[in-house]
Amino acid sequence: MSDVRLVLTPGEPAGIGMDLAVLLAQQPPDCDLVCVADPAVLAERARLLHLPLEIRAYNLGAACCRTPGVLHVAAFQVREPVVPGQLQTENAAYVLDTLTYAAEGCLGGSFDAVITGPVQKSVINEAGVPFSGHTEFFCERSGVDHVVMMLVADALRVALVTTHLPLRDVPDAITRDKVARTIRTVHCALQTDWGIGDPRILVAGLNPHAGEGGHLGREEIEVIAPVLAECRAAGIRLEGPLPADTLFTPGTLQGADAVIAMYHDQGLPVLKHAGFGRAVNVTLGLPFVRTSVDHGTALDLAGTGAVDAGSLGEAIQLAHEMAARRAPGRAVPRL
Amino acid sequence: MSDVRLVLTPGEPAGIGMDLAVLLAQQPPDCDLVCVADPAVLAERARLLHLPLEIRAYNLGAACCRTPGVLHVAAFQVREPVVPGQLQTENAAYVLDTLTYAAEGCLGGSFDAVITGPVQKSVINEAGVPFSGHTEFFCERSGVDHVVMMLVADALRVALVTTHLPLRDVPDAITRDKVARTIRTVHCALQTDWGIGDPRILVAGLNPHAGEGGHLGREEIEVIAPVLAECRAAGIRLEGPLPADTLFTPGTLQGADAVIAMYHDQGLPVLKHAGFGRAVNVTLGLPFVRTSVDHGTALDLAGTGAVDAGSLGEAIQLAHEMAARRAPGRAVPRL
Repeated sequence: MSDVRLVLTPGEPAGIGMDLAVLLAQQPPDCDLVCVADPAVLAERARLLHLPLEIRAYNLGAACCRTPGVLHVAAFQVREPVVPGQLQTENAAYVLDTLTYAAEGCLGGSFDAVITGPVQKSVINEAGVPFSGHTEFFCERSGVDHVVMMLVADALRVALVTTHLPLRDVPDAITRDKVARTIRTVHCALQTDWGIGDPRILVAGLNPHAGEGGHLGREEIEVIAPVLAECRAAGIRLEGPLPADTLFTPGTLQGADAVIAMYHDQGLPVLKHAGFGRAVNVTLGLPFVRTSVDHGTALDLAGTGAVDAGSLGEAIQLAHEMAARRAPGRAVPRL
Repeated sequence: MSDVRLVLTPGEPAGIGMDLAVLLAQQPPDCDLVCVADPAVLAERARLLHLPLEIRAYNLGAACCRTPGVLHVAAFQVREPVVPGQLQTENAAYVLDTLTYAAEGCLGGSFDAVITGPVQKSVINEAGVPFSGHTEFFCERSGVDHVVMMLVADALRVALVTTHLPLRDVPDAITRDKVARTIRTVHCALQTDWGIGDPRILVAGLNPHAGEGGHLGREEIEVIAPVLAECRAAGIRLEGPLPADTLFTPGTLQGADAVIAMYHDQGLPVLKHAGFGRAVNVTLGLPFVRTSVDHGTALDLAGTGAVDAGSLGEAIQLAHEMAARRAPGRAVPRL
């Protein structure tokens, strides 16, 4: 039994996050888990899904019980009644409340890791709150200015130097500083969170064939290779810049602990092809562990029972493992 | 037994193309196959590999025998003796001779399809001949100004709108004309060469999340979606523009006959991850069928016996099937 304590934010109440929390309660993880949500919405969702759910108010001082069907909940109230599948701007404030609570609890030491369900960015923006995603939200709350998005599926770990940028803006965003910080963050996380003493990292080039000696672009020569040389000199085991299409072949991947891709669609199609339904989104570089499901709010599925909790299960399992490695053998330091 | 006649160019004589031709002769396909190469180099490579090889001069008028160990060869002489693994500029002219012969034979009707082994572009360029690849070479010889590169592995077929361009140049190369011609070429090939009456094609967006409604780039709205609407109006079944990372998930791929990706590293990493060792490169839009192995000259492996002929075998099989569909039931129209 682990002394790790996780916090789960189911996210948008009209989406499948609530369904996932109810499903999770049926097979609780082997650690403390607190769900930040509206208890009434959870209870109603359990009723729709014909699943048992006993909600217990989360008490900072007490351990959580791990009985199937029981969920410990830190309660926040939605502003308007929730109908599955129907977004309501009024409830954006509720969603942000749950994220704030989880972030502060992680920063303050009440929780070791946060697992986030899907939110609907557009609804939060329509409510007048600038919000570009969980990652940026947690970054700002933590006072951190550089994090790395990594997707994990089974043994494949793919981190990105740039994330949600128009393709046109990608080449100029690949700077020496950005590549170097990404490598250092990934290297540090593999050691700290995955317990890999001397990780081996594969780094993709930016251009097809990794620029083919400069014939297909010069960013490999002018930006990426020099950074790799510096990082190697600092003792990090790196291979690259490699052509993305050979990097992801099974032979090349073998024995690698992580892949660093330069941009979103260079790295994620393979990962989601290979690991869909099991992929977990991880934010590296925050002062706490954060994992996330790898799917959206799936509004049309909310309350229907046709929800696959695979990604949430993997996200919780990974957060548990990472948090346990960050705090090996420590006693619960809460209250 | 098929009446299709294929022509194989093993390519760079110092590379593994010669090894592949010798391996192929041990298990000949169920159709006529003519290898365009230097018989002495083939014989020497067979000796190095300890494999039997009986070379017969190819005679335009005669059918090929399909006995294991026998290879029909259209003979061209290398200019300098070949040592496996050692490139020689003098032999570039030989390589070009073999390609010219194959192209003219396909255009003239002596052959139904060409299968190309790997060449070393740099050696041809050093010999003073501008050469940017087989595809461009065959394009020029055929008087065609637009072809499409497609990679095929098992049931997955991925065609590219742009191929070997620096990433920086990709967004401006995605024009309405280019997208439309690519879709039409792929659609036509699926009907003609794969015999799929009403193919279903998935088209990726250019930007991450296919631009997310314009927030992550406007090429989907301004370029890709209007072309898709036109093509749909013309009766082509299309889905897209789709986010590349969800497009390649198994559920989305199910029932699709081909994927059109906007650029090299958006489409090929998944294909080579899923199908490495079995991937075949196909050029669509030429007046003849052309397939190719999906690997380079592997100079260090030439003559060693450590060569995998999987991709060549798949390339020949696919060329055979495509050629047979182009000319169903026809008698051999030769000489």
